[in-house]
Amino acid sequence: MIPQLQTVPLEKAYRLLNHGPTVLVSASHQGRSDVMAAAWAGVLDFMPPKLTLVLDKSTYTRELVEASGRLAIQIPCAAQLELVQHLGTQSLHTAVDKLLHPALELFYHGDDLPYVVGCNAWLRCRVLHEPNNQDAYDLFILEVEAAWADPAVFAHGRWHFEQAPAERRSLHHVAGGHYYAIGEALNAST
Amino acid sequence: MIPQLQTVPLEKAYRLLNHGPTVLVSASHQGRSDVMAAAWAGVLDFMPPKLTLVLDKSTYTRELVEASGRLAIQIPCAAQLELVQHLGTQSLHTAVDKLLHPALELFYHGDDLPYVVGCNAWLRCRVLHEPNNQDAYDLFILEVEAAWADPAVFAHGRWHFEQAPAERRSLHHVAGGHYYAIGEALNAST
Repeated sequence: MIPQLQTVPLEKAYRLLNHGPTVLVSASHQGRSDVMAAAWAGVLDFMPPKLTLVLDKSTYTRELVEASGRLAIQIPCAAQLELVQHLGTQSLHTAVDKLLHPALELFYHGDDLPYVVGCNAWLRCRVLHEPNNQDAYDLFILEVEAAWADPAVFAHGRWHFEQAPAERRSLHHVAGGHYYAIGEALNAST
Repeated sequence: MIPQLQTVPLEKAYRLLNHGPTVLVSASHQGRSDVMAAAWAGVLDFMPPKLTLVLDKSTYTRELVEASGRLAIQIPCAAQLELVQHLGTQSLHTAVDKLLHPALELFYHGDDLPYVVGCNAWLRCRVLHEPNNQDAYDLFILEVEAAWADPAVFAHGRWHFEQAPAERRSLHHVAGGHYYAIGEALNAST
């Protein structure tokens, strides 16, 4: 099933990650694909929107990212808790059936990246080649080329978690399978 | 009043930021000090613990950081919502009384950095000099030298928001004064 996608204007794309969620990273190269979870992704710039992402040298996903120069960042939700944990702890290097998890359904959307059904948002990115950062720090600098969100949770440039079921809240990993869902909306008066 | 500080072992320090909170950044140089809010901070490595932080060239804090090579990262809480918004929207360049906010109380703890009373955790950091990242991306790479937390909310290497008052929850900024507090604890079964 192709999820309901609403285009997020590029100047609002940073808002998908500004609150610090754990993300899913998809990549593909010459017929090989992988999806992994990553807590260490963040915003680097507004427009054009740029992100940072840490990808350890041991990950299979990193090989695909370095070979293809492209990847997808996705914002998973609480309903995907067990899937996110699976994708963040298993490696295609050793678990060859990693992507056969019963909760993992992929879809394609105008490129060869495997996007994950059930996420809150999806961002198509290209790698801005920075060999020193990649080698010394496992740090990748990304430019967002396109972004989409499920309008049930993100619309008009804002998250609307308070109007959606609790299972749609973003996940925020601490360590060792211990996560928090995002919580109460608070608005500063000034 | 000096807050209750419990040392966080360096190998657990990344857990203070792993869930993506908005932070406060303090810096000081030759008698000048500033504190600002920043949503674009994240974890870069476990041990020694490293962080990334984006500091726009227009900020007064950045001048102090570049001159001193040091800064403090702090994890504020929901009780500090209006203070965080103030520190993130006012600049010492134009609002010379920025630090006279009634909710801002500073303390010192073994160095000349002004730490903010009422936060959940405090991390003393030094800048790992990377001129290309700083110039091209406003991106600073930091090494954490010491970390402390309020044991009411972080102890034994974990956040314990669910056992603390709601006003102690971390803040996660989206845009324009719209924040979320961190929410429900979720534990993956695998």
